[in-house]
Amino acid sequence: MADLFWAGDERAGELMSEASLLEAMVRVENAWLAALVETGLAPASSLCDLTADDVETVALGAESGGNPVLPLVNLLRSRTGSEWVHRGLTSQDVLDTALVLMLRDVFDRLLDELRSQVIAASALAESHAETPMVGRTLTQHAVPTTFGAVAASWLDGLVDAAELVVAVRKDLPVQLGGAVGTLAATTELAVLRELAPSVVAQAVTMTAEALGLRPRRPWHTSRAPLTGAADALVTCTDAWGHVATDVATLSRTEIGELTEATGGGSSTMPHKQNPVLAILVRRAALAAPALGSTMHLASAMTGDQRPDGAWHTEWATLHTLGRRTVVAASQTTELLQGLQVNAARMRTTLEASAADVLAERRGVADLLGAKHDPDPTTYLGITSELVAGAVARARTFLEDNA
Amino acid sequence: MADLFWAGDERAGELMSEASLLEAMVRVENAWLAALVETGLAPASSLCDLTADDVETVALGAESGGNPVLPLVNLLRSRTGSEWVHRGLTSQDVLDTALVLMLRDVFDRLLDELRSQVIAASALAESHAETPMVGRTLTQHAVPTTFGAVAASWLDGLVDAAELVVAVRKDLPVQLGGAVGTLAATTELAVLRELAPSVVAQAVTMTAEALGLRPRRPWHTSRAPLTGAADALVTCTDAWGHVATDVATLSRTEIGELTEATGGGSSTMPHKQNPVLAILVRRAALAAPALGSTMHLASAMTGDQRPDGAWHTEWATLHTLGRRTVVAASQTTELLQGLQVNAARMRTTLEASAADVLAERRGVADLLGAKHDPDPTTYLGITSELVAGAVARARTFLEDNA
Amino acid sequence: MADLFWAGDERAGELMSEASLLEAMVRVENAWLAALVETGLAPASSLCDLTADDVETVALGAESGGNPVLPLVNLLRSRTGSEWVHRGLTSQDVLDTALVLMLRDVFDRLLDELRSQVIAASALAESHAETPMVGRTLTQHAVPTTFGAVAASWLDGLVDAAELVVAVRKDLPVQLGGAVGTLAATTELAVLRELAPSVVAQAVTMTAEALGLRPRRPWHTSRAPLTGAADALVTCTDAWGHVATDVATLSRTEIGELTEATGGGSSTMPHKQNPVLAILVRRAALAAPALGSTMHLASAMTGDQRPDGAWHTEWATLHTLGRRTVVAASQTTELLQGLQVNAARMRTTLEASAADVLAERRGVADLLGAKHDPDPTTYLGITSELVAGAVARARTFLEDNA
Amino acid sequence: MADLFWAGDERAGELMSEASLLEAMVRVENAWLAALVETGLAPASSLCDLTADDVETVALGAESGGNPVLPLVNLLRSRTGSEWVHRGLTSQDVLDTALVLMLRDVFDRLLDELRSQVIAASALAESHAETPMVGRTLTQHAVPTTFGAVAASWLDGLVDAAELVVAVRKDLPVQLGGAVGTLAATTELAVLRELAPSVVAQAVTMTAEALGLRPRRPWHTSRAPLTGAADALVTCTDAWGHVATDVATLSRTEIGELTEATGGGSSTMPHKQNPVLAILVRRAALAAPALGSTMHLASAMTGDQRPDGAWHTEWATLHTLGRRTVVAASQTTELLQGLQVNAARMRTTLEASAADVLAERRGVADLLGAKHDPDPTTYLGITSELVAGAVARARTFLEDNA
Repeated sequence: MADLFWAGDERAGELMSEASLLEAMVRVENAWLAALVETGLAPASSLCDLTADDVETVALGAESGGNPVLPLVNLLRSRTGSEWVHRGLTSQDVLDTALVLMLRDVFDRLLDELRSQVIAASALAESHAETPMVGRTLTQHAVPTTFGAVAASWLDGLVDAAELVVAVRKDLPVQLGGAVGTLAATTELAVLRELAPSVVAQAVTMTAEALGLRPRRPWHTSRAPLTGAADALVTCTDAWGHVATDVATLSRTEIGELTEATGGGSSTMPHKQNPVLAILVRRAALAAPALGSTMHLASAMTGDQRPDGAWHTEWATLHTLGRRTVVAASQTTELLQGLQVNAARMRTTLEASAADVLAERRGVADLLGAKHDPDPTTYLGITSELVAGAVARARTFLEDNA
Repeated sequence: MADLFWAGDERAGELMSEASLLEAMVRVENAWLAALVETGLAPASSLCDLTADDVETVALGAESGGNPVLPLVNLLRSRTGSEWVHRGLTSQDVLDTALVLMLRDVFDRLLDELRSQVIAASALAESHAETPMVGRTLTQHAVPTTFGAVAASWLDGLVDAAELVVAVRKDLPVQLGGAVGTLAATTELAVLRELAPSVVAQAVTMTAEALGLRPRRPWHTSRAPLTGAADALVTCTDAWGHVATDVATLSRTEIGELTEATGGGSSTMPHKQNPVLAILVRRAALAAPALGSTMHLASAMTGDQRPDGAWHTEWATLHTLGRRTVVAASQTTELLQGLQVNAARMRTTLEASAADVLAERRGVADLLGAKHDPDPTTYLGITSELVAGAVARARTFLEDNA
Repeated sequence: MADLFWAGDERAGELMSEASLLEAMVRVENAWLAALVETGLAPASSLCDLTADDVETVALGAESGGNPVLPLVNLLRSRTGSEWVHRGLTSQDVLDTALVLMLRDVFDRLLDELRSQVIAASALAESHAETPMVGRTLTQHAVPTTFGAVAASWLDGLVDAAELVVAVRKDLPVQLGGAVGTLAATTELAVLRELAPSVVAQAVTMTAEALGLRPRRPWHTSRAPLTGAADALVTCTDAWGHVATDVATLSRTEIGELTEATGGGSSTMPHKQNPVLAILVRRAALAAPALGSTMHLASAMTGDQRPDGAWHTEWATLHTLGRRTVVAASQTTELLQGLQVNAARMRTTLEASAADVLAERRGVADLLGAKHDPDPTTYLGITSELVAGAVARARTFLEDNA
Repeated sequence: MADLFWAGDERAGELMSEASLLEAMVRVENAWLAALVETGLAPASSLCDLTADDVETVALGAESGGNPVLPLVNLLRSRTGSEWVHRGLTSQDVLDTALVLMLRDVFDRLLDELRSQVIAASALAESHAETPMVGRTLTQHAVPTTFGAVAASWLDGLVDAAELVVAVRKDLPVQLGGAVGTLAATTELAVLRELAPSVVAQAVTMTAEALGLRPRRPWHTSRAPLTGAADALVTCTDAWGHVATDVATLSRTEIGELTEATGGGSSTMPHKQNPVLAILVRRAALAAPALGSTMHLASAMTGDQRPDGAWHTEWATLHTLGRRTVVAASQTTELLQGLQVNAARMRTTLEASAADVLAERRGVADLLGAKHDPDPTTYLGITSELVAGAVARARTFLEDNA
């Protein structure tokens, strides 16, 4: 898997791929069928191991009914000869739950990456807690800071994103509601088989457990689980976009305070050390918010018991957003782990700007009729404390999510 | 306050208005000044009660420095003659914290509205738990459901949104970092006055407490607090958009299952009962996701110790998003509280479609070689249970957030 | 080619596919090399027929330099042993021009589809110019119209979009500027070979002609050619979204005025005639505006002589937007060509609503103290004229773009 | 008019303001009433001069019917006692046409600004056609260019945007269709008054002429006129965003090649020369694409003869987008007119990087076994020609649009 339009796409492996979608849909059908049998809603003889890897066939069959579940079910039923496959479910149950399963895999990978990033950013923050550099606001030299403080601000953003991912991940729900979210067909099965009505809820719970998802009332028309997931993904790319924007700026030839471990070159300009990872991460961060907005729009335009287009918009949007987020995660991890910090240049630049960057300090001293220390590398406020605080928070996060 | 371009804008009162922004900024300056004095960082004589209501003057002075804090501080300093006003702060501290204060007021109002909505939707769900209606998917009659189940799906969406609002609201942080987030000027004050270094953090904590916000390390370049707030706002408009989309559809002349209490009329077509509230809510729901995406974009493009445009994009975006969300909240509350349900028409439509909507039930019976009840109003699955579950969750939410 | 996440993707064939991108990039390299030789900038011996179909290899090689041109050039140079390949060009020249070539193919296909749509919508407008139906505003019956007038409004939207496509298509420019848009390397070649300076512009013109594109000064940092293309694509999906929204509504079970030729079914609900094409078109129309906004954002954030992420955002965005637009085009064509109009039902519904929909007519009559014709099917204003006008405009478009 | 949330808003004066909207709506009512009288559709006695400046009253009355036209008409009718006011029109006619009138004023102002910008950028391009500077790609020094070439790329973007504005401006259409776009009430008037049916079209044409707009079939459900206008606005902010991004970067303390005439300062850091105009323009450019996408979304979701929310989304979106575009226009004009170019620093930086930026030239020479001129300021390709071409195009634009 690689994508000529999205450099680095292969980093996402099979996460959110078409093959994964097919596999996840089959997993859902299997789990449900097993639950039907287990609860007695379907005969034991109907149990079978459903499999399918016919991505192209299923994809080509998707248009006539509007989604890929119909051709998949036809395939599974014709192969097994069993009418029990998919019984009680609707296409949306299978597709929504499959998307959630894929999102969980995405979140698991993201958490791996975020943990690595948090470790790398913590190390940068700690080792450069006393590395002075000029602070810049609105593109201009302002007052001093430390590179540790910069890394600590990255760290806070990473942990913010990671905490959101953890929260969303643990609430990921199964979708099981039948044609209009009433579980009527399954209930009818229970009635006709003279089973207790509670078997319906049991089948839902069993399926959720088998898939490792949270049981939840049908959310076919209440899409907060998916918008929450999308918002978490975009919050990740925001955090990485922040890191990448700083790296891109601080890598500028004239600034030269940071360098990526292996800057991308150019065939005709071998001196170039392009901050390629930062650039590719910024690419993702620029495009992600619009994709997140599409998920919210789909949620807001949901009507009836299944809407006329809004639902269909979600799948590819999550596919694109999910894969790109994983790619950007991996690139940010690599970027942070290999980042080279030119502390000497930071100091030189700061000292060359001393007269200007001490203006605020001078103002404070003037106010008190006092004198101030003219060394810009000592005007660092509580940066040590801020760095320590960010690192401590990061450590707690890592311990809580080992 | 009313807005010729956004009907109903007056419902938001002064929330997120220009006057509120000015007032909030002054509150921040006052709280900080008080903290400086309390900690001994500023002389007791510098304490004064800052006030300002010169919205136009401040607004006109904003461009030269790029934000309204500079002219406000000039005004406050010239009026009080005190150089201690704003000492140690930067514009972003004041503006960010002011925005957060305004967001808190917005969230408080939203929670009031959401509680009312949850009560109204719970009542609809419970009183129509046994009101059968046709379920519709992809615009077509599918299988039966109840209006209670529809209201329960609204309810779940409302509670999802409300829980997110509660979570975001309680974490709203103060922003206090000084020029580049190091609190250097305040620290310098402590040094020159020979105070313990810990007074700096104390001043932050006192200010946060005075404003009722959470202390937090500077987040001038880590914008998750604001994107989280924006995502919560958009998740609200999503939930209301879902309700409004259903109301708009079910109010169609040919469907007539729902009617707004006071449908908007037309001068030349007095028979019209336009679902005006639903339409205005859908308006907000269509526009909100794009505004949310702008907040994420600003977050992602944040670099340096204050970025070159991204920060400036946030204020008006939050203003627009915040006000509109309150307006839509109020309209949705009114919509839900006055909604008229035509249960008889629901039943008539369902029964007229009986042959079709029982197809699934027939299929289940055929599978078992059994017969099925031909009454469509009995094919309702576990809707009672679903309604009860949604109402119970709503009740818990109301109790936890009374 | 089919896509499990986007039903109907196969309709786009190889348009905007990865294979097409590779092919287009190779075409650009070939055209440029031929122009270098033709102008004497490169030796005749360097001419060769470059070919490549190693999509995966090139894609995997893209990340280290940030784009797929570098690995492609390495491949082409190592295969041909010629250092003349790509001489004078930069990656952006090849990728931008390749995207433009692909967009041209997309536009050609869109114009085919739009012509078919214009013919189909014209036929609907003309054959139903006298088919009365109720007009609906804000979901409610308002006053009468004709289905011909509805189709005429679709037609105007289609021709608006088509005219924009025609305008954008004929201005599609080549991108040839070298490393920073100065054509310095090519100019250096001319100097060292003692050729007239005008050969540089000649090489550009020749390449443009060979590719059938317009010569233009480098637009590496002025992206209006791409945003104009994206806006045209989104204007198409808007026009189709309008058609699809009407079809989805008028297909509702309770309305039943329109039916798609082959409505999508459901395994368990065989009576359903889902307007699947309309739903899939609406899906595209919901998602396209956000993609268009990403192109504008990339344009706005372009800086330096090649920006740090904005450019990289464009390729996949155009890929997605381009393919989806073609798919929606094809689906809309099929939808319009097969649309079944239930004129009898339109009339029945209108007549049943006569008292209401004549209110406005009554008001006019009352104003003049006159009586009015009580037949709702005669209160149609100038619909005949409007239909004729739309059809005439469509005919002119078809003649001008045969 | 100033806006505490959007620094510089006062630059837009009354363009797209609430007062302007009210005035424009009244203009439309007046023009239509005059046309009714002129054509004999209304009695001569009904002619009167409608006026209204009750913005707040009308705004407060807007919600019950969903738009501000209903309360305005009530006001006008009660004041004049005439039932002929608004006769034959629908709210959408008045509001859409009023928006178009306001857009025309916006475009006129934009063209003034764009002309000034084109003149200023042409002057920069010409006077710096021979000012060498380092070209930068992906944040790194690449090969030389000239500042004239940079200004020429800005110029091409400005002319691209200006040409689009000109094209859209001249096609701005009137909206006159009555309740459902059939002009039925007006036609009924003609019938009852025994006038020729052609008077209806005459009334439309007269009104269009009186307002200086193009007559067009009703486009109440075909929104390309508005999306085209929005795309033109966003294309403007893109072009300015490009300029502002370059200015922000080249103003960086470490680069210092450009300075705004009056950089914004800071109370505590007087040395700062913040590129405030560039920052505020970038702010607009970051936010505009999302607003443009909302206009497309509204267009795509248009159904029936007036949609249930999509239409209502457009007004405030155009208001915000329109005003902000004017503000950014004015700021960009000021920025370009006052821009200070530090040619000496450009040259110094280029020469310091000579070894690196000549790598490509070396490569070309090596290929031919030749030697190359080691002066980086002579490796400028065809920049002179490119600048001349851009300036010539700009001159033609100015002549064609004097």
